[in-house]
Amino acid sequence: MHKMDLIDTYKEGFITYLNEKIKVTEPVNLYEPIHYILQLGGKRLRPVLTLMTCELFNGTVNEAYDAAMAIEVFHNFTLIHDDIMDSAPIRRGKATVHKKWDVNTGILSGDTMMIMAYQCFESYEPITFKKLMLLFNKTSLEVCEGQQLDMDFETRNDVSIPEYLKMITYKTSVLVAAAMKMGAIIANVDKNEADAIYDFGLNLGIAFQLQDDYLDTFGDAAVFGKQIGGDILENKKTFLYLKALDICKDDDKQKLLDFYTSNQNSKNKVEEVTQLFTRNELKGIIIHEIESYTNKAFEVLESLSISKEKKEVFKNFGLSLMKRTI
Amino acid sequence: MHKMDLIDTYKEGFITYLNEKIKVTEPVNLYEPIHYILQLGGKRLRPVLTLMTCELFNGTVNEAYDAAMAIEVFHNFTLIHDDIMDSAPIRRGKATVHKKWDVNTGILSGDTMMIMAYQCFESYEPITFKKLMLLFNKTSLEVCEGQQLDMDFETRNDVSIPEYLKMITYKTSVLVAAAMKMGAIIANVDKNEADAIYDFGLNLGIAFQLQDDYLDTFGDAAVFGKQIGGDILENKKTFLYLKALDICKDDDKQKLLDFYTSNQNSKNKVEEVTQLFTRNELKGIIIHEIESYTNKAFEVLESLSISKEKKEVFKNFGLSLMKRTI
Repeated sequence: MHKMDLIDTYKEGFITYLNEKIKVTEPVNLYEPIHYILQLGGKRLRPVLTLMTCELFNGTVNEAYDAAMAIEVFHNFTLIHDDIMDSAPIRRGKATVHKKWDVNTGILSGDTMMIMAYQCFESYEPITFKKLMLLFNKTSLEVCEGQQLDMDFETRNDVSIPEYLKMITYKTSVLVAAAMKMGAIIANVDKNEADAIYDFGLNLGIAFQLQDDYLDTFGDAAVFGKQIGGDILENKKTFLYLKALDICKDDDKQKLLDFYTSNQNSKNKVEEVTQLFTRNELKGIIIHEIESYTNKAFEVLESLSISKEKKEVFKNFGLSLMKRTI
Repeated sequence: MHKMDLIDTYKEGFITYLNEKIKVTEPVNLYEPIHYILQLGGKRLRPVLTLMTCELFNGTVNEAYDAAMAIEVFHNFTLIHDDIMDSAPIRRGKATVHKKWDVNTGILSGDTMMIMAYQCFESYEPITFKKLMLLFNKTSLEVCEGQQLDMDFETRNDVSIPEYLKMITYKTSVLVAAAMKMGAIIANVDKNEADAIYDFGLNLGIAFQLQDDYLDTFGDAAVFGKQIGGDILENKKTFLYLKALDICKDDDKQKLLDFYTSNQNSKNKVEEVTQLFTRNELKGIIIHEIESYTNKAFEVLESLSISKEKKEVFKNFGLSLMKRTI
């Protein structure tokens, strides 16, 4: 489990850095919610990736902390605003910011966090600074566009698979990819290498999101840590649903549409829709899709000029992320 | 009226630039509200100041458009989010974004505009880029802190005059000051000169805000363009109110507190509070305060190394802003 030790080391280092950096200052009503959300925990996946990538590209890991912090602060800003938009009461087992305080506090603390994220980059020299900012601007904008697409899809009945893939790419994968590329930029690697590690993160991120769709329907509740069938109960237009509409014969298609327009929230619904997915071979189709994106990510790794051992660390990290399914 | 011609020229140039730059792209539900708020009009005071300052410091005005745009986009982002927080239905005579669409659209379009503001700086070379970004980060954070202070003051009964001045400085003056300093940075002037024009903008901004307090109570409705006494009706803790609490004798002080804790929204209230302010000489006190900040701004101008004629342009601009009162 050497790779897990490595990841834990980065995570611990990051949390120590975070605790030193994020203090509650005046006005307290603005900075307390920021401190709160940043202390709620979570996997710290993105900052760990920035640190790890910087080091694997022979950069100085200490120089990557500020970019890692920017990514984590930005990610948590999106959580606050997304939770308001989704009216979500709970985040990581605790009250969301707009529930613990109020919507106005959530809006303004979120805005402030976005600016704080930008401020994290101030320690970099102008050339690196600008490279990081260009990537951060592009990525942040895509994250907002992804959130908009997600909201748009709720009321649309003609969402295509490519549109869905674009949405999950923008909403989550680009930030994972950017987290890695920032590590590479700080390590001052060639543009080709930085672009390659971005593609690795992007494809792995898409695989990870599709795996989330898979686990929500076909996962083991004990392992998944969430209720199985939540997406079906909420009529969420996931990959499974959209692909089923594409390939099912008329009767199953109609059945699925009926299930997703009714508000029938029964265990029966989850079971019947899952059976419908299964008899139409959606399980195999989505596993194939996940494998395809994972393999794309691993293929990109081959093009890198780093040592075989270092490629293995990236690959093992990818495998550890995906091990829940395949 | 040469100075007005100049300002109109900058404003027209800016609007042409804005219209070229801001197009509605996909996802339309995200970018339509952004286009809407940016087309609502307004004085375009801040971008005009960036353009004017750049040119008066012998910079190339064309190079200042992107920074001017960043400032205007950021300012309009704050309008969208502030209108949500204040539940304001109308902005510049039209429906606010969250009224015309909904709160979620307002939140997300606002977030997107903040990122777009950052993107506007991408055209600058790394050294200038970083200088502008440092100033923009600091200023944006102060604007958020100012908004938080403003919200905090609504439920506090012990707001001091220095706290009030800090709030209006952060909430509005720093952005005016930064707009001017950005023009100076783009013109590549010495740090001292850039700091001086920032101070000019800051003091003028404070004077302008205090004048708003003055006009809301003592102004001429026809000239002011708003209902007189609005602040009093809304129990707003303005400079006049806070200073009155400081200096009034016990009976008038109690009377004022009573007026501001009742929900009595009558013409009588406006008249009586105005009379109370008048008999306690608040009119003279606030005029003195406005003049004091205006003069501080004009004194700073003297230290600049630009020609007397150019100083006159800045001064005339200041006078034209303040001419409504003094």
